Amino acid sequence: MADTQTVAYNNILFELDSAIAYVTMNRPNKRNALSLEHMQELIHCFENISKDKNISVVILKGNGPAFCAGHDLSEMVDQEPSFYRNLFDVCTKLMETIQSIPQPVIAQVHGIATAAGCQLVATCDLAVATEDARFATPGVKIGLFCSTPMVAISRAVGRKKAMEMLLTGEALSAEEAALAGLINKTVPANKLEEETKAFALKIAQASPFTVGIGKQAFYKQLDMSQGLAYSYAKEVMSLNATAADATEGICAFLEKRQPIWKGC
Amino acid sequence: MADTQTVAYNNILFELDSAIAYVTMNRPNKRNALSLEHMQELIHCFENISKDKNISVVILKGNGPAFCAGHDLSEMVDQEPSFYRNLFDVCTKLMETIQSIPQPVIAQVHGIATAAGCQLVATCDLAVATEDARFATPGVKIGLFCSTPMVAISRAVGRKKAMEMLLTGEALSAEEAALAGLINKTVPANKLEEETKAFALKIAQASPFTVGIGKQAFYKQLDMSQGLAYSYAKEVMSLNATAADATEGICAFLEKRQPIWKGC
Amino acid sequence: MADTQTVAYNNILFELDSAIAYVTMNRPNKRNALSLEHMQELIHCFENISKDKNISVVILKGNGPAFCAGHDLSEMVDQEPSFYRNLFDVCTKLMETIQSIPQPVIAQVHGIATAAGCQLVATCDLAVATEDARFATPGVKIGLFCSTPMVAISRAVGRKKAMEMLLTGEALSAEEAALAGLINKTVPANKLEEETKAFALKIAQASPFTVGIGKQAFYKQLDMSQGLAYSYAKEVMSLNATAADATEGICAFLEKRQPIWKGC
Repeated sequence: MADTQTVAYNNILFELDSAIAYVTMNRPNKRNALSLEHMQELIHCFENISKDKNISVVILKGNGPAFCAGHDLSEMVDQEPSFYRNLFDVCTKLMETIQSIPQPVIAQVHGIATAAGCQLVATCDLAVATEDARFATPGVKIGLFCSTPMVAISRAVGRKKAMEMLLTGEALSAEEAALAGLINKTVPANKLEEETKAFALKIAQASPFTVGIGKQAFYKQLDMSQGLAYSYAKEVMSLNATAADATEGICAFLEKRQPIWKGC
Repeated sequence: MADTQTVAYNNILFELDSAIAYVTMNRPNKRNALSLEHMQELIHCFENISKDKNISVVILKGNGPAFCAGHDLSEMVDQEPSFYRNLFDVCTKLMETIQSIPQPVIAQVHGIATAAGCQLVATCDLAVATEDARFATPGVKIGLFCSTPMVAISRAVGRKKAMEMLLTGEALSAEEAALAGLINKTVPANKLEEETKAFALKIAQASPFTVGIGKQAFYKQLDMSQGLAYSYAKEVMSLNATAADATEGICAFLEKRQPIWKGC
Repeated sequence: MADTQTVAYNNILFELDSAIAYVTMNRPNKRNALSLEHMQELIHCFENISKDKNISVVILKGNGPAFCAGHDLSEMVDQEPSFYRNLFDVCTKLMETIQSIPQPVIAQVHGIATAAGCQLVATCDLAVATEDARFATPGVKIGLFCSTPMVAISRAVGRKKAMEMLLTGEALSAEEAALAGLINKTVPANKLEEETKAFALKIAQASPFTVGIGKQAFYKQLDMSQGLAYSYAKEVMSLNATAADATEGICAFLEKRQPIWKGC
């Protein structure tokens, strides 16, 4: 098991609360802008989490007035083309890492989530936001279209809504974001931590082994034709059915008792 | 024409009401759990329906307190791997058969639709539910992730909502299911049969030949890139335009009279 | 630059209002039915617009009581198969042209948008409609399933809603269309022009160069698996980041001033 708790980061905080890991973006004065280093630390942290079997769920949140304002523009002026390619490579790796780790990641959103910050919300498996949170892809206003955020956002919400966000750069309210499918639900600001944790605890009751199988299969099958998706999902589910945690779970259900997960 | 009405089934009922076929899951004490035999009978019945040109629309419903509670867990304990593979093969064949027959299939849902029962709702072409119906993929709670239901559900509703259902196992209300796109509409419990039939009768007014062309093309084109989908749909529509029922339909429309379908 | 303003059309009107181009379907007595000639003129007009760097946004609207009632049925009786193939080829080319030009196209919808008229709405990048507008794919009622409109509509709204429209031919209200994702928003009838123009003006503030990059990438990446979409979008965004308008936009933002676009 990786010793996730002893790494010192410059831009993020890592905390464990039983089976829930909290990853906190901690550049409050920069509205948690995703500098290159910040993203590299997030990737490192999520990769370590993926190896830690004691962690069932991850909550991603931000310190200060905002969840995340996207890339750090002060870093992005007058750079070589190779700088930008590396920057968007690292950003994409961050998004892919979040979806590839076995533990579900819940975005806990307050303030604004813009550009790559909005992409983080679209990328996380689940998202809870305060009623006054706002979501935007405003790159178009600064001459830099949110093309990589678009990949995540156009897979989370419908085409017309995605185009509206991308072409106008205007923000969605939390209520609009929930209706559009960008987030799961809105909560009063003073209930954000409590409600997000309650969401995490529901998932933490399940076998992490089973959850990991399901999360991985979810993203894989989404990109297949339906026929291939079924061929794949049948194999996944058949294998899952022979595992100890499925046997235990089905027996516990039939015997009307709580299951005891073995994690395999 | 297959003589659909004379087959005796152990788990389902088949009835005809003019051009509407009713397929009723009839294991009320088991909340219509999908045992292997139950699914095989449903496949057999839908295959026979597909050959019966007198049937324009199918309504799938359940006797007893629930629409369908998914697989029959009592069947699923301590089985060989080959049992599970066959079970999910048959289940997938059932879902693919429902979408492959030319007649639209409407799920008429009351009570609960869970796991493979929820998958049935997601798979049917249309779905009407009572206001108190509930929809869930609770496999995660028993250590067996709803990986095959996920294929259908993640293609009917948005990613965040699908993930929430799959990871928490919590139920959606009928209103939430309608908003998410899992069902077409909710009706008061005492209007369920009447409203579902009204839905079916609207479709039954159309040429079954035309409806069959459209339903088949719908699922085929969904899995194509947009460019290929247009190439395919252009061919389908050009051929459809030269058919007798299109000529009759267009003439009847221009002459402001009711069309008389020839079924070709 | 093409001289877009001097072409005389039989079925459409073209007007410029600063950076906004208005394309008006002008067959009011035919509810703007898409005859072959009408569609060819629309394609010609959109192709010319694509070459005109002074145009930032296009608004597509209809004269008379309806936005567009679909194909011209009076043209479609007793034709050779080759006529239909050509008709659907031209119709598909119209839809693909709208999405391929660099400028966003906003459908300004009033009255009805049916069959290929509803496909136009689904195809445009954005759509604003009056509260009493109605949307339908009624081909099924005349024996000619809306198979090519289906390609656009099933990519804009969920499966269950698309199937309902296609199988019943019944109309969605504007409110339902907005909820389903077919249009961006509804406005009171007397605000339609004003609100659509306001929408267009928001987009016209951005660099047309940036908007063109984004619009093109949007449709390309939608048909890719997520992994390929990211590979592609990273290249697009890296290239965009080195362009003059991105440098100017980022600098203007950091300096808290309005950007001056160079269009490259």
